[in-house]
Amino acid sequence: TASAWARLREFVVQGFEFGRSDPRKVVFAAKMGLALTLVSLLMFLREPFHDISRYSVWAILTVVVVFEFSIGATLSKGLNRGLGTLLAGGLALGVAEIFNLTGSWEEILVIISIFVAGFFATFIKLYPTMKPYEYGFRVFLLTFCFIMVSGYRTRAFVETAVSRFLLIAVGAGVGLGVNICIYPIWAGEDLHNLVAKNFTGLAKSLEGCVNQYLQCLEYERVPSKILTYQAFDDPLYSGYRSAVQSSSQEEALLSFAIWEPPHGPFKMWNYPWSFYIRVSGALRHCAFMVMALHGCILSEIQAPPESRQIFSSELKRVGIEGAKVLRELGDSIKAMRKLNKPNFLFAVHEAAEVLQKKIDRKSYLLVNAECWEGVELPDGFKGILNRHGVMEEENKSYTRPHGEPIPDHRSSTLSTSFAIQNSMTSDIGSLAKMDSLLRRQMQWPAKSFTSEVIAHEEESRTYESASALSLATFASLLIEFVARLQNLVDAFEELSERAHFKDPVDETRLE
Amino acid sequence: TASAWARLREFVVQGFEFGRSDPRKVVFAAKMGLALTLVSLLMFLREPFHDISRYSVWAILTVVVVFEFSIGATLSKGLNRGLGTLLAGGLALGVAEIFNLTGSWEEILVIISIFVAGFFATFIKLYPTMKPYEYGFRVFLLTFCFIMVSGYRTRAFVETAVSRFLLIAVGAGVGLGVNICIYPIWAGEDLHNLVAKNFTGLAKSLEGCVNQYLQCLEYERVPSKILTYQAFDDPLYSGYRSAVQSSSQEEALLSFAIWEPPHGPFKMWNYPWSFYIRVSGALRHCAFMVMALHGCILSEIQAPPESRQIFSSELKRVGIEGAKVLRELGDSIKAMRKLNKPNFLFAVHEAAEVLQKKIDRKSYLLVNAECWEGVELPDGFKGILNRHGVMEEENKSYTRPHGEPIPDHRSSTLSTSFAIQNSMTSDIGSLAKMDSLLRRQMQWPAKSFTSEVIAHEEESRTYESASALSLATFASLLIEFVARLQNLVDAFEELSERAHFKDPVDETRLE
Repeated sequence: TASAWARLREFVVQGFEFGRSDPRKVVFAAKMGLALTLVSLLMFLREPFHDISRYSVWAILTVVVVFEFSIGATLSKGLNRGLGTLLAGGLALGVAEIFNLTGSWEEILVIISIFVAGFFATFIKLYPTMKPYEYGFRVFLLTFCFIMVSGYRTRAFVETAVSRFLLIAVGAGVGLGVNICIYPIWAGEDLHNLVAKNFTGLAKSLEGCVNQYLQCLEYERVPSKILTYQAFDDPLYSGYRSAVQSSSQEEALLSFAIWEPPHGPFKMWNYPWSFYIRVSGALRHCAFMVMALHGCILSEIQAPPESRQIFSSELKRVGIEGAKVLRELGDSIKAMRKLNKPNFLFAVHEAAEVLQKKIDRKSYLLVNAECWEGVELPDGFKGILNRHGVMEEENKSYTRPHGEPIPDHRSSTLSTSFAIQNSMTSDIGSLAKMDSLLRRQMQWPAKSFTSEVIAHEEESRTYESASALSLATFASLLIEFVARLQNLVDAFEELSERAHFKDPVDETRLE
Repeated sequence: TASAWARLREFVVQGFEFGRSDPRKVVFAAKMGLALTLVSLLMFLREPFHDISRYSVWAILTVVVVFEFSIGATLSKGLNRGLGTLLAGGLALGVAEIFNLTGSWEEILVIISIFVAGFFATFIKLYPTMKPYEYGFRVFLLTFCFIMVSGYRTRAFVETAVSRFLLIAVGAGVGLGVNICIYPIWAGEDLHNLVAKNFTGLAKSLEGCVNQYLQCLEYERVPSKILTYQAFDDPLYSGYRSAVQSSSQEEALLSFAIWEPPHGPFKMWNYPWSFYIRVSGALRHCAFMVMALHGCILSEIQAPPESRQIFSSELKRVGIEGAKVLRELGDSIKAMRKLNKPNFLFAVHEAAEVLQKKIDRKSYLLVNAECWEGVELPDGFKGILNRHGVMEEENKSYTRPHGEPIPDHRSSTLSTSFAIQNSMTSDIGSLAKMDSLLRRQMQWPAKSFTSEVIAHEEESRTYESASALSLATFASLLIEFVARLQNLVDAFEELSERAHFKDPVDETRLE
């Protein structure tokens, strides 16, 4: 019993925390309770409203079914329910009237009509464009069958249809009234906030990726949740993942938001909600580049820390400016204000150009001149290529150049010497993860790897050259990210025009 | 009326086509009709089953609500409905019994209990882990209120509860029976096929990307749907997009599949459906690299065709081998058989290694030696660097090296000369899309771009160097894609172990 008590207490504490983290949910639950209470008062109605009281279950059912978290969802479900009921009621009454004239055929015709209605309503609702009305078809079918069956039994077709519709209207009215009048929760607002939040998350991811790359922090072992793209609490990963993954949530919110009347800051009929989705899509297009940047950190092939150091300040600046752009755009969406600079992307473009030029001037650091085929370099030139300390002769044969700042996680984990690990990795073309290979006991084309430590200068060099190119990849992905910002700004500007975002100039004037 | 007829005919034709494209939907609709027909037969029951006939609406309601496309969804909804009804019925009966003893307080207590039930059921169902049981909470609430209200009115608490439960059981029984016994549609099978299909789609995307890159086909104008990551019918794009976007569909299918009993080829209780999701996640991790490869094609910065030609056969081979791996994995999943080679990835790893070595030997083609800072090259060396015809002196100043095979879409579209376009692009650090810029009438830091055509040798060179690095990026992304295949194969092997896929050796023996 003591443990049962403890679990109960834990449960209550958890519920309390959950409620505190999002008070809207508590309010919503209370609203639901209130609406149900109001509807159930119907049961106390006495004559002459006895009939209403008798069918009050329909009102309760309607409240339970229609009462959704956001106003848009409630309206869309209510409308589906209303339309479905009306259409089905009308059709059922007409059909029943006709069948009544056929005399003895009636029973068979009723059964056939139920089959036919069931078939077509179900078939049509499976059609992709009908998806938003799925619930309406269900209600249509339910009402049709209900009226046919109970009408046939009681011979009170019209009464059944009317009372049912009346009670559904009462239920829907109470549900909508309570939901809209008391602390309304708008899907449009949620969509607005979600899109703005994704900007901030992506900015954090971008900064994190650039910083971690420059600090040469590798993952000791890449979490398997990242390798299978599942939710995982990594600050670099979760930022871009949620920007990418929110698409289905956004679609759902959009489908509700379009039903909502003007409210709060969204003072417009036909508010351009779909343009939020476009902005979010453009953001996703940028997020894929951040994802690829993160891929450079996850990769087995890593650029030597020394060459990262050389491009450090330029890369960092692009990262900072890019993140700043994302944050400013996110803030502008949040505050619903237009961009106040004519050349909004100037700083980030300039930073990217500086990086590009630096790469251009130092591109010899990104390749390995030693291996050039048919190119005989004069002795002095080799010295020039190597003077930045990236490709020092003594480092070349067995270990990749390896500075002090990078802690060697992997070799300590595997308790193999770094030299062995390194030549092994290059042995197989630097392609497979070390860990997985050792685990699987060398299924690889059997080469004894202890005896060949010294013999693989060539492949070791291949690995080194791949390492250097990896920095080039990181830089060009970053530049491509910057290039994609223009598209994002275009999408934002289209939204800000259509949604009549406020002018930033007016704002400064007021201050 | 003629146009109305035409539209009706079009509608019918469309419906017919839709039915032919997926006959399962027709069958499902017919099953729904059948189930409804069977349930509505209840209304013809005479004494002594009059009561059942009277409440037959509950059976109809249950069928309409519970009858879902896949067996798993039907079972999960049916269970939710059954449990919700039972719990609510038990609770309502107990509470009503107690309230009955309180005499005059009864009415108020009934109302309070409805509020309390409404509040807690709604609050708890919003808790994230409760999401699969959302429907159960709804039913709980509905039943509780229904029994309290109608029980209070008729004083027949027990009768209400029992008859309601009985009819729901009948409805659920008929629904489940029809759905399972006649042409069952399994969510597990859909999940299985979806995952296998994504492999094929991604393979097609990969091959397409590599081929298009080597043929130097650029987009005349990147479709805005791709820029905002919306569905678009592009063979390169739709393959990886559907692999990435299917995650929510897979989650939904998984949540149904776990309810399904062993069936067809899935002859096992507790079939490891969740490992399909892991395989699919690992595939997604690879798909992101294909996405980044496609990004190289979409990019404004393009490597010169000549240097692509030099690496053509190696890149192509990696693409072909990679696609082969994906197809073989997809086929193995489809056929539920284990991999038959111990070194499944050998060929693709070898291809990637050959590519890597070629890059290593020819890395001078990926950089622009002209701009190296502080490096004074001997005259002969320049000649060596340039002898592959990639960086010919005469091409350098205004136009990027541009071979015959690539048709110049963009310049004809914009009707500007290619030279102007090119220097313009480099003017702004090669970052923004030409099209968008021209459309927006040069909001860019105002430079007259006709007078500066000749003056920007330096930036033109920057652009050129970026161009060359873009090929390095493409190659390293392709190599990273190959590296990620190991993770995919690991995930596949885990699935094939747990799901007891058949041995390929046994198969060849049987043949």
